[in-house]
Amino acid sequence: MAARKTSRESAEDRLIARHFRPLATHPGALGLVDDAAVVAVPAGHELVLKTDGVIAGVHFFPDDPPDTVARKALRINLSDLAGKGARPLGFLLSVALTRDAVDGWLRKFTAALGADAKKFGCPLLGGDTDRTPGLLSVTIAAFGTVPRGTMVRRAGARAGDLAMVSGTIGDAALGVILRRDPGAARRWGLDRRMREHLLRRYLVPEPRNAIAEALRRTAHGGMDISDGLVGDLAKMCRASRVDAAIDIARVPLSRAARTALAAEPALIDTILTGGDDFEVLASVPPRKLVALRKAARTAGIALTEIGRFTKGSGNARFLDVQGRARKFARPSYSHF
Amino acid sequence: MAARKTSRESAEDRLIARHFRPLATHPGALGLVDDAAVVAVPAGHELVLKTDGVIAGVHFFPDDPPDTVARKALRINLSDLAGKGARPLGFLLSVALTRDAVDGWLRKFTAALGADAKKFGCPLLGGDTDRTPGLLSVTIAAFGTVPRGTMVRRAGARAGDLAMVSGTIGDAALGVILRRDPGAARRWGLDRRMREHLLRRYLVPEPRNAIAEALRRTAHGGMDISDGLVGDLAKMCRASRVDAAIDIARVPLSRAARTALAAEPALIDTILTGGDDFEVLASVPPRKLVALRKAARTAGIALTEIGRFTKGSGNARFLDVQGRARKFARPSYSHF
Repeated sequence: MAARKTSRESAEDRLIARHFRPLATHPGALGLVDDAAVVAVPAGHELVLKTDGVIAGVHFFPDDPPDTVARKALRINLSDLAGKGARPLGFLLSVALTRDAVDGWLRKFTAALGADAKKFGCPLLGGDTDRTPGLLSVTIAAFGTVPRGTMVRRAGARAGDLAMVSGTIGDAALGVILRRDPGAARRWGLDRRMREHLLRRYLVPEPRNAIAEALRRTAHGGMDISDGLVGDLAKMCRASRVDAAIDIARVPLSRAARTALAAEPALIDTILTGGDDFEVLASVPPRKLVALRKAARTAGIALTEIGRFTKGSGNARFLDVQGRARKFARPSYSHF
Repeated sequence: MAARKTSRESAEDRLIARHFRPLATHPGALGLVDDAAVVAVPAGHELVLKTDGVIAGVHFFPDDPPDTVARKALRINLSDLAGKGARPLGFLLSVALTRDAVDGWLRKFTAALGADAKKFGCPLLGGDTDRTPGLLSVTIAAFGTVPRGTMVRRAGARAGDLAMVSGTIGDAALGVILRRDPGAARRWGLDRRMREHLLRRYLVPEPRNAIAEALRRTAHGGMDISDGLVGDLAKMCRASRVDAAIDIARVPLSRAARTALAAEPALIDTILTGGDDFEVLASVPPRKLVALRKAARTAGIALTEIGRFTKGSGNARFLDVQGRARKFARPSYSHF
């Protein structure tokens, strides 16, 4: 239904050749000149599959720069592979472009996407490019591999395990508030660096693929935190049929988040339920903690024990310093 | 950024459980309660990967019924697996829903999607569901398997091969015209059945997965025809570095398309270049033709020899009854 052009190769073919072919470094991508990609899964391994997408105005701000849109779209999928203990294999890309996403936009988008694909060892395998009169969107299906039977499950947590999280929690959710209300930075007493930290954490997640293999070797259960720590921990508890008790005071916060929280204590709800963290949540038996900590240190990734899993029927409790369970009005981000 | 609701399980979780979980029949889908799916590829086999999507107003009409949107979204991907000789394994689904796609819409959508998933042996493995203020879109990544090294390539055609197509060509492109201009049916002298045939062929493709294995055993080169026979054959010729000579008169047409063409001979361009055919185009060595024909007959799929591949440098020629090569202003559908 779109405009057509006259040529030996179509404009779509030329666009793919110019912008996307350089990213298709996997031999199975066939230079993007076939209808499908073909890849081998190493013997004794299984394939881990995930898809997630971003839509302008829903998952990112329409004026976000193309390089951060690209990185976010790939990294939210890489983060899931990390939480599952999988090693990245490659990805498929579906992009719906608006009329104003022209050559310059695409050049920056694909340059950043290619840089991340290289950095995380996750090459482009194939894709689909469309024009849309609607909103710009980027959908990625990412693939990883694990030795057979070793994918870290959401349902794997056991009573007695420690609840561990990577990095810091709540930064991106605070970053969203700052984008909508720049005056919040002053109210919260943030300096320029803290403000930029929070904004950056929203724009470009830091998936923890560098500890994926260690998670696979040490964690009973795992997932990435994308919809908020409270809601995602609750999902893990329900899937694993265990309870969890988390000390809110032990949840790792960045200096920026701590500063904002000191100025406005009610932000703890945003921090714990806002989502877009893209950190790893894992249930780890105490005897494996040293090995996991060592791997995290080598990878330069902070890892914090925030509580414990206990026998129960799927309830996650977040305890304040007095040991009282805090209630959350909206435990989890939901599109519906 | 979307509205939130209070509950133990989020509204998104409930929506997934109600509408999508029944489709996740593959054990590796983990009932859609993990962050990723995990599947094994049979020993000695490779994975074939494809993604394609449909957007309201671009790939289908906004008032198309939800069941045909579902079938089209899955089948355009299944058609690629068919063209590659791959056996379906499963698919990932990303759907961006508008506010007016409510429970009733989703129920019909998932019922049809589930029926096709069962029919083609391609279960739902996982997915992502979002609300969009933009246009409804459905993106699918479909996976298949082939014995190692046997995927039918676009680049596999050789001089001396026969050019074969399945089914009939041009129906969907004529169906689009009928949707936009219902008066065309009368101009073309179509009866009700012929009109419905063309409309149906646009709404719901018939992917040729039933001959995929036979193609893998007999064809040197193959692909599905999605952007028009002329453009797609040209792609195969360029990729394979061979020429092709096609007799236009041998291109298989439905009774409806023949009737329309008789009334309006210029429609031959639409028929040969309009796209959305989702038939298979294959290059087959003459000695394998009997085996392929037998398999097609068993599957109830028409298969027609339309010309030959010859030595050359990548040119596809379409010859009229006088043996003159026809030129096409727009050989291929392009979104750009």
